[in-house]
Amino acid sequence: MAKTVGLLGGGVIGGGWAARFVLNGIDVRVFDPDPEAPRKLDEVLANARRAFGRLTLAPLPAEGAVTFVGSAEEAAEGVGLVQESAPERLDLKRSLLQAASRAAAPDTLLCSSTSGLLPTELQRGLSGPGRFVVAHPFNPVYLLPLVELCGGVETSGETISRAGNEYRELGMHPLVVRTEIDGFIADRLLEAMWREALWLVNDDVATVAEVDDAMRYGAGLRFALMGTFLTYRIAGGEAGMRHFLAQFGPALQWPWTKLTDVPELTDELVDKIAAQSDAQADGLSVRELEQLRDDCLVALLQGLRGQSYAGGDTLAAWERGLLDGREGETGPLTRRVPAEWVDYNGHVHEARYLQLFGDATDALLGTIGVDGAYLAHGTYMTAETHLSHLGQLHAGDEVTVTTQVLGADEKRLHVFHTIWLDDTAAATAEQMLLHVDASTGRVGPAAPEIQERVVALAGDHASQPRPERAGRRIGG
Amino acid sequence: MAKTVGLLGGGVIGGGWAARFVLNGIDVRVFDPDPEAPRKLDEVLANARRAFGRLTLAPLPAEGAVTFVGSAEEAAEGVGLVQESAPERLDLKRSLLQAASRAAAPDTLLCSSTSGLLPTELQRGLSGPGRFVVAHPFNPVYLLPLVELCGGVETSGETISRAGNEYRELGMHPLVVRTEIDGFIADRLLEAMWREALWLVNDDVATVAEVDDAMRYGAGLRFALMGTFLTYRIAGGEAGMRHFLAQFGPALQWPWTKLTDVPELTDELVDKIAAQSDAQADGLSVRELEQLRDDCLVALLQGLRGQSYAGGDTLAAWERGLLDGREGETGPLTRRVPAEWVDYNGHVHEARYLQLFGDATDALLGTIGVDGAYLAHGTYMTAETHLSHLGQLHAGDEVTVTTQVLGADEKRLHVFHTIWLDDTAAATAEQMLLHVDASTGRVGPAAPEIQERVVALAGDHASQPRPERAGRRIGG
Repeated sequence: MAKTVGLLGGGVIGGGWAARFVLNGIDVRVFDPDPEAPRKLDEVLANARRAFGRLTLAPLPAEGAVTFVGSAEEAAEGVGLVQESAPERLDLKRSLLQAASRAAAPDTLLCSSTSGLLPTELQRGLSGPGRFVVAHPFNPVYLLPLVELCGGVETSGETISRAGNEYRELGMHPLVVRTEIDGFIADRLLEAMWREALWLVNDDVATVAEVDDAMRYGAGLRFALMGTFLTYRIAGGEAGMRHFLAQFGPALQWPWTKLTDVPELTDELVDKIAAQSDAQADGLSVRELEQLRDDCLVALLQGLRGQSYAGGDTLAAWERGLLDGREGETGPLTRRVPAEWVDYNGHVHEARYLQLFGDATDALLGTIGVDGAYLAHGTYMTAETHLSHLGQLHAGDEVTVTTQVLGADEKRLHVFHTIWLDDTAAATAEQMLLHVDASTGRVGPAAPEIQERVVALAGDHASQPRPERAGRRIGG
Repeated sequence: MAKTVGLLGGGVIGGGWAARFVLNGIDVRVFDPDPEAPRKLDEVLANARRAFGRLTLAPLPAEGAVTFVGSAEEAAEGVGLVQESAPERLDLKRSLLQAASRAAAPDTLLCSSTSGLLPTELQRGLSGPGRFVVAHPFNPVYLLPLVELCGGVETSGETISRAGNEYRELGMHPLVVRTEIDGFIADRLLEAMWREALWLVNDDVATVAEVDDAMRYGAGLRFALMGTFLTYRIAGGEAGMRHFLAQFGPALQWPWTKLTDVPELTDELVDKIAAQSDAQADGLSVRELEQLRDDCLVALLQGLRGQSYAGGDTLAAWERGLLDGREGETGPLTRRVPAEWVDYNGHVHEARYLQLFGDATDALLGTIGVDGAYLAHGTYMTAETHLSHLGQLHAGDEVTVTTQVLGADEKRLHVFHTIWLDDTAAATAEQMLLHVDASTGRVGPAAPEIQERVVALAGDHASQPRPERAGRRIGG
């Protein structure tokens, strides 16, 4: 992976790239003539930092550094990859890329975030045009996995595969667009929908909020996991895709959509859309909307990760990469409270607290050698638990669970767990575990080496003050 | 809410409606001339039952009954609502609806699932056309919240509001389409995208899998929470929607999309799409794809519920409704232990025992009037729990949970639950619950009528012997 990246442009897209690179431990050199660029980029980075904190439990590398520089040449000096994210004007993008191409080392990748300009046009006149490729991301760049890769006539195959690897290591899903075409793939689909949406508002069929609701409460939920074709394959029922095409194909000829033309963006239409959009935002600032969007995207990606599917798989692959080479590390159990633990009333269900305590017990058992192999001989099972709820957890909270061994003998293991949110105890659990022999299913002594370790732990922990809530009974 | 519903058609959409109604405790009378209809409907219902089991911890009502009948008239007799989901042919839909309209009571709602036919056309010739409305759902009907409501010229305002309430109680999000238009709102957007997708495949720009990936790894994730307009408002950055339109408006004039025409569904194109679709499905059957889709949708809806946004809000509102109206219900809680509660070691995880006890507490709270409406004032939260494990549960066990109220005052509720497997106690939980005021988030007195009921219950239960394990502490 590149250790330093040059960014041409630091706006919504360039700032999103900066965040994705920096949070993956890569330094960025940014050229953006806008005097407000550093402030704006800081704000995007703050959002991204917040989102990444919720997104993963995997250990993130130390953040890369952000350096603002005075020219495209300076941004490209000594970097492994240049990412251009300037406004969508061919002449502007070309001049920035050409300047960068002359200053960069010969093997530096040159990438453009353009959403529609053709790579063959953009690479003309570059020093080393073969290393140029369009790498088109989606907002927010630091969370959405997709990056479309599209080469021009001079782009080498090696460039596309090198770029794919770079973006994959950043937690993205590179999609190679094999045919050079205006708008690539995704924006052709979005553009078609956007035109139709504008007509619906222009003709007063629906407001912008109604158009949006028609998507997000329905088909939009499916689009987070499956595209149109797989969705329609399923809709075809047992007979599949061919049946679907036969059944719904003719409907394509109906004059449903007004696609032959583009509504003119008159002052009137712009005013209407802007006013309806203000009403829809309901007083939320762009920053607040961004955070709402990010929190939802994090929850969606985590949900899909639980199903090992679509964007969730991309997330899991990235996390496994972050965990590589960290085996054998110790320390207290930390967890981020996942969104699905929250119930209809906005609270984390009480059973989830016990799940956290159970995980802490599992972690303790792992350290004393009750592992997959030992399960054939026996295990510890909970006989009794006393839970105290002292505060509330919320989705996204990062908690730490500490464990004190209060006592142990040949069969028993007496522990006291505390869930900490910052420095405050949110809940405690006192548990009595009994060792159960796997062959008889009855309580029986643990293996000698296990007994030794639990007794030693109890001895070590005896110097800690006894928890105030240990030995509590419920008063009535 | 209607207690019985008549369904005309029991295919993919009709079966999905059957599942949503039945799992909400409503009986359905189904007319479908397909001899395979009962088998197909059973399969959809099995999928839906599986999805609902994962979707919510709220208590589902007893399932409604499914009865197959021999005619549209029979399906409409004595029902509160008729839902027509026949193939998209005007003559067929009309004749079914007309037959049903003559057999139904005068106040029975008549609804059509059509995705594109106009309500004014469909309601012509009905007996009581004012009670007809299009109610267009999205597949899978039992999980996706959206239902578009569109009336014809004869439809009364009362019909639209009554229908909205019916669907809302089923956990759906009714969107009133104010202008009668072919394709309503959602399908106009989807149709525009679908045409463009067909062109991309027809012209060999991309395969069906690549088109789908361009959506689901990128903008598709956003569509699960926000539509196009709100997304673009955010993309406009600090300057908002007006800036976005000024910046990207001109790009609309670029000849990106091939929207002026529809690709002809030649045998060649159908073969190409079907073959690519088979490759994309990678050997998964439609049933397997449906379950994968459902599991992902459940995870997405739960993630959004954690953020109190979009479809997650619809889910939470439905769950609160399930908790309503359970006042005065008695009898112990019974549950079958689901297979997914079993861990890698073949045991039911200890947290699942607490989930069962939590359900029993919820059931108790329902009977004393702490329902969805009361949650706005306050609720009881668990302060302390003492669990004792006396036996083991296994997947498929049917258990009963009994509850004894040991004490109560203005703020406190002291209960003792026992999980019974046949006549043997498998586990017990003593719990101290405290009443929390919703406005302050602090412990405070329950409403007087709630106090009265808990004190009365404690009095009633005082005659039962005090459980042996009440007041236990963990010895060490």
